[in-house]
Amino acid sequence: MTEPYLLTPGPLTTSRTVKEAMLRDWGSRDGAFIALNRRIRARLVELANAADSHVAVPVQGSGTFAVEAMIGTLVPRDGKLLVLINGAYGKRIQRMAEVIGRRVVAIEVAEDQPVDPATLDDALSADADITHVAVVHCETTSGILNPVEAVADIVARHGRRLLIDSMSAFGALPLDAARVPFEAVAASANKCLEGVPGMGFVIARADALAAAKGNAHSLSLDLHDQWRGFEANAQWRFTPPTHVLAAFGQALDEHEAEGGVAGRGARYAVNGRILIDGMRGLGFETLLPDALQAPIIVTFRMPADPAFVFDAFYDQLRERGFVIYPGKLTVADSFRIGCIGRLGAAEMRAALDAIRATLDAMGVASGAP
Amino acid sequence: MTEPYLLTPGPLTTSRTVKEAMLRDWGSRDGAFIALNRRIRARLVELANAADSHVAVPVQGSGTFAVEAMIGTLVPRDGKLLVLINGAYGKRIQRMAEVIGRRVVAIEVAEDQPVDPATLDDALSADADITHVAVVHCETTSGILNPVEAVADIVARHGRRLLIDSMSAFGALPLDAARVPFEAVAASANKCLEGVPGMGFVIARADALAAAKGNAHSLSLDLHDQWRGFEANAQWRFTPPTHVLAAFGQALDEHEAEGGVAGRGARYAVNGRILIDGMRGLGFETLLPDALQAPIIVTFRMPADPAFVFDAFYDQLRERGFVIYPGKLTVADSFRIGCIGRLGAAEMRAALDAIRATLDAMGVASGAP
Repeated sequence: MTEPYLLTPGPLTTSRTVKEAMLRDWGSRDGAFIALNRRIRARLVELANAADSHVAVPVQGSGTFAVEAMIGTLVPRDGKLLVLINGAYGKRIQRMAEVIGRRVVAIEVAEDQPVDPATLDDALSADADITHVAVVHCETTSGILNPVEAVADIVARHGRRLLIDSMSAFGALPLDAARVPFEAVAASANKCLEGVPGMGFVIARADALAAAKGNAHSLSLDLHDQWRGFEANAQWRFTPPTHVLAAFGQALDEHEAEGGVAGRGARYAVNGRILIDGMRGLGFETLLPDALQAPIIVTFRMPADPAFVFDAFYDQLRERGFVIYPGKLTVADSFRIGCIGRLGAAEMRAALDAIRATLDAMGVASGAP
Repeated sequence: MTEPYLLTPGPLTTSRTVKEAMLRDWGSRDGAFIALNRRIRARLVELANAADSHVAVPVQGSGTFAVEAMIGTLVPRDGKLLVLINGAYGKRIQRMAEVIGRRVVAIEVAEDQPVDPATLDDALSADADITHVAVVHCETTSGILNPVEAVADIVARHGRRLLIDSMSAFGALPLDAARVPFEAVAASANKCLEGVPGMGFVIARADALAAAKGNAHSLSLDLHDQWRGFEANAQWRFTPPTHVLAAFGQALDEHEAEGGVAGRGARYAVNGRILIDGMRGLGFETLLPDALQAPIIVTFRMPADPAFVFDAFYDQLRERGFVIYPGKLTVADSFRIGCIGRLGAAEMRAALDAIRATLDAMGVASGAP
């Protein structure tokens, strides 16, 4: 079976060299592995230009585990969280806070609208109990880019603390702690940093983490304890995903070699441009106007042509070597195609060729309407 | 740098073929990956002879994450947990229950003593509020084998529910649901099943999971929700560690080819015998008598000879290609050597040769006292 390209929001296609970094076993308390840990933690805070103020705390599990560790540890038990929602990942933060037992309120807008800084401003003025605000940087539900800088300004002006879920954006879209004041950001090894799945991380203000002792609702997801462990002996409290971490170290080297956030973001921007222009040329409509679209994952409306059956489209594309992603919208029937991972212009053009061939085979009329 | 053998309780040495299974990327919602999930879940319940009563629920993260998911989901909010403790992992369950907010009591014995079924019997007679009992199958702190069958009999006789942490034992020491009544057992892909670290799993009674909706203290570690997700579409709720899972599928195939639990356990028993006899021949003393020793990891008392400095011993052994493990005992100065992972008699003998050479180089008198 040929390995398909993954045009998804992750797990995504990684480089051969990233995967080959997993071909050895590491003792988790051995010097070589500890050095790897140190290097990764240092590089992560550099990527956010946050080395003077923040620390990076890796967390086992998926990105959601890192987000839950961030929320459960940094929002104190008597705190109150306001979540800005325009998709499933914002909703997930709200749900998480409810399960954990934190007071939580939300401002929700439609999935094709960015979160609104002005409404946030009003809400913070009206409710002095709100201690923290959570926002999703790029909402993978639609692929929309949220205005995190404007949100951060307002949160800072009100003296509240900002928690960012930058899962799908970190490493490709800039997030500079010197310009965007944030308390913490959570992300994953497996999105724009192009590692393999199995760990996330939180980059948090050291003073906030220090003040968060005893907050957490969970032993495994206690970010304060996890941080204290790293600071004490550079080791993980509980067994780390050693191979995933080795792959992540390699992935961060390749990210740096590509020119860091700017270089990675530039490649994805080209991928996204090719994808969107090509798909529009085939008659597809994007959910979002270009001004709101992040170069991460693109939502397309399901064509009206009755010859277009998504499951058949998916299967035939997969046979042609490309895995795409179902839609997650509540408001419209759709599917998604990612443009992140170890893919460039050639692979995006090949994907468009496969899509064109699939439409022909299905008897769907293609070409701009 | 040559890759050393890992004589540790994990992460441990895995086969080349297990690692090579990570050389491809998988779409987490793609058919091929879903088939892999199904196969792994089915095999895990078979290993516990529990296919008629239990289901397997994989959990992202380290083994501790799986244990926390088990405790937090299966002990209801008004439940009461009794933990049998003879080492750090029993203590961790107690701490976990406290953090989660469950009522918890403990019966603790010394680290070189097995947990005591008679005391458990008395405790359950005395306290009708106790709903669940937790026990560690093999306590990695010392390497001791706990009498899980006798514990299970007593728990069943009192009509309470048993939760087993079989992290270091599952796959090499028998655990047969038809003979040992248990509500759930938690273990890891990376111990005796010889996968790579990054996921654990819980094998739980389906009726108990069904009754556990809403119990969990955490979204990420909600075992009920995770199970419902698998049952609905065989997919993980949140991004799975795809490469780790692929390695685990290969590891389970290799486990089966070796003769399953009996075959794996037999190899480890030989490894343990060679290690213990050889180390005694070099003058080392084991913490435990052979009757209490599981063939997983062996604790040795630190030699009295002032020429023996553990850090130097560790470093020189590592240069000779073997990583061992520090002690974790509170009662005695010690170190540990594991005999699990992709290691056989030849590697154990080579390790003993390296230990002998290291003692000579350090000027430590070896030979039985």
